[in-house]
Amino acid sequence: MKLQIAIDTGGGREALEIVDAVYDIIDIVEVGTPLILREGLAPVALIKKKYPRVSVLADTKIVDGGGVECADACNAGADIVTVLALSCEATIRAVVAAAHKMDRKVLADLISVDDIPRRSKLMEKWEVDYIAVHTPVDAQQGGRTPLGDLKQLSGAISSQKAAVAGGVNASSVKDYAALHPAIIIAGASLVKAPDIRRAVLEMKSLINEAANQ
Amino acid sequence: MKLQIAIDTGGGREALEIVDAVYDIIDIVEVGTPLILREGLAPVALIKKKYPRVSVLADTKIVDGGGVECADACNAGADIVTVLALSCEATIRAVVAAAHKMDRKVLADLISVDDIPRRSKLMEKWEVDYIAVHTPVDAQQGGRTPLGDLKQLSGAISSQKAAVAGGVNASSVKDYAALHPAIIIAGASLVKAPDIRRAVLEMKSLINEAANQ
Repeated sequence: MKLQIAIDTGGGREALEIVDAVYDIIDIVEVGTPLILREGLAPVALIKKKYPRVSVLADTKIVDGGGVECADACNAGADIVTVLALSCEATIRAVVAAAHKMDRKVLADLISVDDIPRRSKLMEKWEVDYIAVHTPVDAQQGGRTPLGDLKQLSGAISSQKAAVAGGVNASSVKDYAALHPAIIIAGASLVKAPDIRRAVLEMKSLINEAANQ
Repeated sequence: MKLQIAIDTGGGREALEIVDAVYDIIDIVEVGTPLILREGLAPVALIKKKYPRVSVLADTKIVDGGGVECADACNAGADIVTVLALSCEATIRAVVAAAHKMDRKVLADLISVDDIPRRSKLMEKWEVDYIAVHTPVDAQQGGRTPLGDLKQLSGAISSQKAAVAGGVNASSVKDYAALHPAIIIAGASLVKAPDIRRAVLEMKSLINEAANQ
């Protein structure tokens, strides 16, 4: 299981400071959608320039113009590009083709998808590399978590392709890790910790404990 | 009926050149999603700085983090911000609240929504200002157009809130204009024309003809 840190606050400079603190212990660094909205793909390029070996996910949430948008993200240095799972087939196939041509990977975000098993199987068929259940930040405030969604996803596709995002923190991470997804994504619980490096190490240790059970 | 020019190619500098050519005859300038992906909100700020009176739509396609992302776009100068209609209620309400607080407007994009009448009525209920049917670029290549979708939308909500996007050009614009949406959005057919100003004037004339019929 890989741990992905989602950086949604600040800009490229602040993101780089976070990567400075965790580059050697984190599996994937996510440049979050709010950063891309503010600064475009520049933060991706900034991180890859300093840390070419760190795996960077650009949370582009592509929903149209798949070929062009995915190629732009890959050219900026993204190792993984995201597409909304509810995009039309042509968009998803275009994103996958553009990413695979450059030896990069695609994560499909199931946000707002009702029928998770059905849609995630289509993602597999269309050769998406990772498929993530994702409880929106705005819905987390109503108490929702992605645990039930991850159970549905794990029952439908290979766990080697499953990912989970949406409020994962130190108290809940073991429940997710017990389902053995490929990627566990945590944002605020790491980024807003007083000591980010320590928070990452603790979460990795919790994930490893669950992996060995 | 307003005409919106969607600028999806190039960067902020190229977008500004297009606006230089049409600022006095266009109703709304759209800074397209691919531009935002590449350069963030900088192109919005660039256009508003030179043309503060031109109405600028930032095609942010927000699907989470509604309050923060909408405020960022408004602070950059966007007059209209877009949200995906299939976002969760909390996200859409947060986008509307953030935009209205700054006296800006919200356009909900119905891309990938199956039940257009049902979802567009919810958009009205949640006080979204404009609701757009939108055939993805990637689906247009399979021959799809948004005409049937616009008919469905016009039957469900006030035409003063309806908008249409997805391959609108000089040969098809009259069919859309006959349904009297508030906004007609055209991209490539204007931006890739040999004379962009002339193409905009011609399309406006076609829209006005239809409006008077």
